Amino acid sequence: MRTSLAKSGLHALVATLAITLEQARHSEAFAYVDQPDGGVPKMANNALNKINAPRSSSPAPLLPDSETLQKLATFADRLADAAREEIKPYWRQGRGVLGQQIKVEEDRSVFQSASPVTLADRAAERAMRDLIMEIYPEHGIYGEEYGIKDADADWVWCVGIWVLDPIDGTRSFITGKPLFGTLISLLHKGTPVIGIIDQCVLNERWLGIAGEESTLNGKPIKTDGVFTLSDAEMYSTTPDMFQHGDALTKFDAMRGAVRTPHYGADCYAYALVASGFGADVVVEADLGLYDYCALVPVVEGAGGVISDWTGEKLTLSNHEKSKGRVLASANPSLHRQALDILNTQSVPSDDILGALSGITSQRQNSNGIPSLICGIMLGEFIAQFGQ
Amino acid sequence: MRTSLAKSGLHALVATLAITLEQARHSEAFAYVDQPDGGVPKMANNALNKINAPRSSSPAPLLPDSETLQKLATFADRLADAAREEIKPYWRQGRGVLGQQIKVEEDRSVFQSASPVTLADRAAERAMRDLIMEIYPEHGIYGEEYGIKDADADWVWCVGIWVLDPIDGTRSFITGKPLFGTLISLLHKGTPVIGIIDQCVLNERWLGIAGEESTLNGKPIKTDGVFTLSDAEMYSTTPDMFQHGDALTKFDAMRGAVRTPHYGADCYAYALVASGFGADVVVEADLGLYDYCALVPVVEGAGGVISDWTGEKLTLSNHEKSKGRVLASANPSLHRQALDILNTQSVPSDDILGALSGITSQRQNSNGIPSLICGIMLGEFIAQFGQ
Repeated sequence: MRTSLAKSGLHALVATLAITLEQARHSEAFAYVDQPDGGVPKMANNALNKINAPRSSSPAPLLPDSETLQKLATFADRLADAAREEIKPYWRQGRGVLGQQIKVEEDRSVFQSASPVTLADRAAERAMRDLIMEIYPEHGIYGEEYGIKDADADWVWCVGIWVLDPIDGTRSFITGKPLFGTLISLLHKGTPVIGIIDQCVLNERWLGIAGEESTLNGKPIKTDGVFTLSDAEMYSTTPDMFQHGDALTKFDAMRGAVRTPHYGADCYAYALVASGFGADVVVEADLGLYDYCALVPVVEGAGGVISDWTGEKLTLSNHEKSKGRVLASANPSLHRQALDILNTQSVPSDDILGALSGITSQRQNSNGIPSLICGIMLGEFIAQFGQ
Repeated sequence: MRTSLAKSGLHALVATLAITLEQARHSEAFAYVDQPDGGVPKMANNALNKINAPRSSSPAPLLPDSETLQKLATFADRLADAAREEIKPYWRQGRGVLGQQIKVEEDRSVFQSASPVTLADRAAERAMRDLIMEIYPEHGIYGEEYGIKDADADWVWCVGIWVLDPIDGTRSFITGKPLFGTLISLLHKGTPVIGIIDQCVLNERWLGIAGEESTLNGKPIKTDGVFTLSDAEMYSTTPDMFQHGDALTKFDAMRGAVRTPHYGADCYAYALVASGFGADVVVEADLGLYDYCALVPVVEGAGGVISDWTGEKLTLSNHEKSKGRVLASANPSLHRQALDILNTQSVPSDDILGALSGITSQRQNSNGIPSLICGIMLGEFIAQFGQ
């Protein structure tokens, strides 16, 4: 499929997906239904168990029922197990194993350009995709390594799509720092409803399910943040993720407003906030969908707040507008204070040019598909067809 | 003793230590001798087993023999065990336990001002000091929390002093990030000859002994770095540790020269380089003696190179000159390239003022002793009395 996608090129891909989406808008709902073989739910055209008809235009889409979500979460757990199995053999194997075969994504922005795609990364995504295709063949998949699945198949992302980042924090991984994570999320009508942050070396797995308490290794967790931003411990993966101009100005304001800025934790920082271990805020920029979708249910289900820098929810439909800028806080009060800071900073004029150059830049992903195109494409879908 | 030190004031303290040092210069060597009770070596005035007479002025001091070092390393291991026992109960206990009792060191530099002193930190240092005072009552101790031990006692730092940092990376610790470490080192005539980096949550202990292979949990380790700086993965705890002026200019040059700058690992970064896990270089500034002494034997014993930014060895006598600026590399070639970068950058004129203000600033440590004084004092000793 990757080969045919690569051959078809951007325009054909956009056209195909556009038709698929248009069909979905006018079809009956795709719904999660129980499979006869063992209770794992399956999405099918002939909906036995309707969840949310696409014709109803409620502002917040109805969630799948709790039982369905639990079953999907159990399946997400299987995905995380599968990823662990693939990743752990490569951990701390040194350059002899990994270095020769690392491919650097040259064409992405400064922050992203050095993110190597490891063998572990690919093997883990492959394993997760295989499982999804086996158990939920109609589900969509959007993974960091292999891009979007089956553009010409009869699935629609608006009902169910798995968004996967097998190794978030490859830079940590390749230097032996055990703070990377496997990110697994299920979007329901573009909203993350299940999220897993899995740290396979430390045997720590955070699970968030919309409407449920988040857990760490099965035990409920709760944020425990300060209530004043000046007392807050703030995380960002690296200051280099904030490009000159607007993002850097805003980040600098945040850095000056908190008690201590911390660096170097990737997705693990959100897990620390959710767990109430002493981290209060995470502010990041330049993230892909796969970098943040899984974080949403985990943070929210622990009592935290997560949004883009304008306070908008992190959904597929908001992705392009959010520009991958994510803010997570231990409580609503902190979040409001942080949003105040992020939205009262002046925007240097060079930002517009920066944003434009960001939108037009592309990178070749591992299979030759310009994967930024996927992000733009999905944004275009939203713009054209709405929810 | 801390009370009497606090009362005596700076001048009396300097005078007392100066006399102690002067006595040491003219006495016979203080040497490590076996104790009758079980083979742990002990330093005594009546040296039975002379190691290095202070009258001999060899440029590189002779090391204690291998057997003595091994015994001291076994004792260092006990210290690390004792620290673990004190630290682990406080790990991830949240603000309810720790936050109320955290003391912020307000008067230190920007980077250091937010370093909280946790209960765990103090308990661990206390436990280690107690053990040293029990087994090696004549040994000197310089710890981050409780400062210098027994300024009026009959010990001299030039033969044996334990330099302790119970929790390097308190900022990681209080946010639940398991990358802090307990640092334990023994200086022999001002040179680190034993070093331990202990990560008590991950059960990882790195041990370095001068002239021996370094180990991780008892297994030999070896660096495995690239040989070209532009391919290197570089760590620094935070960019905020590089103050404006010379340090920041040099750091920026390094950041531009390597493949990827990484952040947020404290002492753990040096352990990653030593272990050959994929990290190549660490560059840091504004470190205290207790922040780096333990790293030296670990990095060197793994085939790496560690020095200050001018290439000078990290010793007590060089501490003031080194300004706490540390560079560690996986191999000599990388180190040379990094030194070239660090020594060809221009020094902005404001650096001189910055350096002066750094020297004159003081902080009150936990027991009321201005502990920067210790650093200055030791520097003054060196300047006055040489080796």
